[in-house]
Amino acid sequence: MIFSELKEGSISLRYGENPHEKAWVYGEPAFQLLHEGRRISYNNLLDADAAWAVAQHLKDIAPFGAVALKHQTPCGVAVADTPEEAVRKAIDADAESAYGGILAVNFPFTLSVAKSYKKYLEVIVAPEFTEEALAYLRKKKVRLIVPSRYDAFVGKPAFGALVVSERILPPLEFQLQVGKPISDDVVMDMKLAYVAVEGAKSNAIVIVKNSVTVGIGTGQPSRKRSAWIATTLAGDKAHGAVAASDAFFPFPDGLEILAEAGVSVVVAPLGSKRDNEVLKRAEELGITFYSASSRVFRH
Amino acid sequence: MIFSELKEGSISLRYGENPHEKAWVYGEPAFQLLHEGRRISYNNLLDADAAWAVAQHLKDIAPFGAVALKHQTPCGVAVADTPEEAVRKAIDADAESAYGGILAVNFPFTLSVAKSYKKYLEVIVAPEFTEEALAYLRKKKVRLIVPSRYDAFVGKPAFGALVVSERILPPLEFQLQVGKPISDDVVMDMKLAYVAVEGAKSNAIVIVKNSVTVGIGTGQPSRKRSAWIATTLAGDKAHGAVAASDAFFPFPDGLEILAEAGVSVVVAPLGSKRDNEVLKRAEELGITFYSASSRVFRH
Repeated sequence: MIFSELKEGSISLRYGENPHEKAWVYGEPAFQLLHEGRRISYNNLLDADAAWAVAQHLKDIAPFGAVALKHQTPCGVAVADTPEEAVRKAIDADAESAYGGILAVNFPFTLSVAKSYKKYLEVIVAPEFTEEALAYLRKKKVRLIVPSRYDAFVGKPAFGALVVSERILPPLEFQLQVGKPISDDVVMDMKLAYVAVEGAKSNAIVIVKNSVTVGIGTGQPSRKRSAWIATTLAGDKAHGAVAASDAFFPFPDGLEILAEAGVSVVVAPLGSKRDNEVLKRAEELGITFYSASSRVFRH
Repeated sequence: MIFSELKEGSISLRYGENPHEKAWVYGEPAFQLLHEGRRISYNNLLDADAAWAVAQHLKDIAPFGAVALKHQTPCGVAVADTPEEAVRKAIDADAESAYGGILAVNFPFTLSVAKSYKKYLEVIVAPEFTEEALAYLRKKKVRLIVPSRYDAFVGKPAFGALVVSERILPPLEFQLQVGKPISDDVVMDMKLAYVAVEGAKSNAIVIVKNSVTVGIGTGQPSRKRSAWIATTLAGDKAHGAVAASDAFFPFPDGLEILAEAGVSVVVAPLGSKRDNEVLKRAEELGITFYSASSRVFRH
């Protein structure tokens, strides 16, 4: 087994993805574990990494960004003008799912932020915790992580080998293909949707309105199905909202589901044989369609 | 970066999870690549591994087992008395999703099997391909993989380290908790549902009827949501069907969604604070509830 050539780090895990499975951490994770209210687990480590990557990607969109995550897939992603609002929006986006979840933010975690939510969280990841926040949070069962600078990679074992890929968020620059240009606020929502869809499991469709995710369709074998899940979860909030797709629409059907729910702006990469058909349909449906430079699958 | 300590194998990838990302294969995958109709990709390798693991797990359930898979999550899993029937059922279980997907089987792939389906597949994984099947399939754009014996591991990079877990399917032995004992055919469906849910991304709920998956709810931050997706996809086929959950029900709500759709048998691990409440509700709903020995998360 190839991993055994690597040196184990100082973190030892009680068990793996499930209690009957053993697990190992090779190398030292580039972070400080400031508090371990309960011993950190295999799933905590992977969830924290997944949430942190998305939180980092929110940096250029708005002053403050927050990500609530479960099972390595975001359940709420938000940006805001204040730290407290970003956290509240990210958690409230899917409050039921966020219970026992991971929260990652791209700003220093203060006592005011720590007191601004009630939800039980398993892990909080932030670039910094203030002394006061630490004193408060250390009484709780949460794990607190401060990452060091690191380059993101993804990958998995396959057939005894290890398959690894870079993880690179493409520039948040989109080209208008059909429809009317949009306001700066909607551009912000579009950037947020694309960052969130990059962090969700493929196939993924994410709907955003007013700087927060309102419907995340993720982990599906069909894009159409992710569109159905995202729009169903969004409900009325899909009206006038922005949707991002992590890869091109192979057919117009996914787009039609989004339009039917009231989505008015879509961002997705092109590259399908049926791009022309998809764009023509967008025009007919009154959807403003922006193209992204690249597919952003994650698994 | 820890991976660079490992030796790269002979497979070089054109790109990673997405076209703008570089990728590497460390070590030699324990398989023979018998045909590479198109160059094998990062996603092909991980999909093939995910499908093969599930196909292997079907071995003791029925004579022949097949798995159709997309985006590292099964879209159709079936067992049958003939190879052709297993393949047909696995592909037809979610025919739309299976297009461009991966097929893994646990039996020798013959010409008759190769001719028994029309669907375009990206990869086929089998313990053996007959000469005639090979001659036929080599004219197609498919990749053909014959795995060697290997021990399954899962894991991912996190914060620059590598986190790895064993992947062990618990014994397919379930304990009756409430309700009436079930027939041997339904026991077979229950085993199939548990194997399929082990291979689906968490949270996962899988519904099986007549030896094939009829609804796969996967990749969701809430178990209730996976129950909703699985039952919606199953439709009328949920009547009298078996459902498996990859972890305990934290509340009775997921169970209620399954019962409402007509599911009559549920298998899930116990371990929730509310186990008694969940089992009592199963009894009230007329559901036969079997417990599994362990949680089977996958991500």
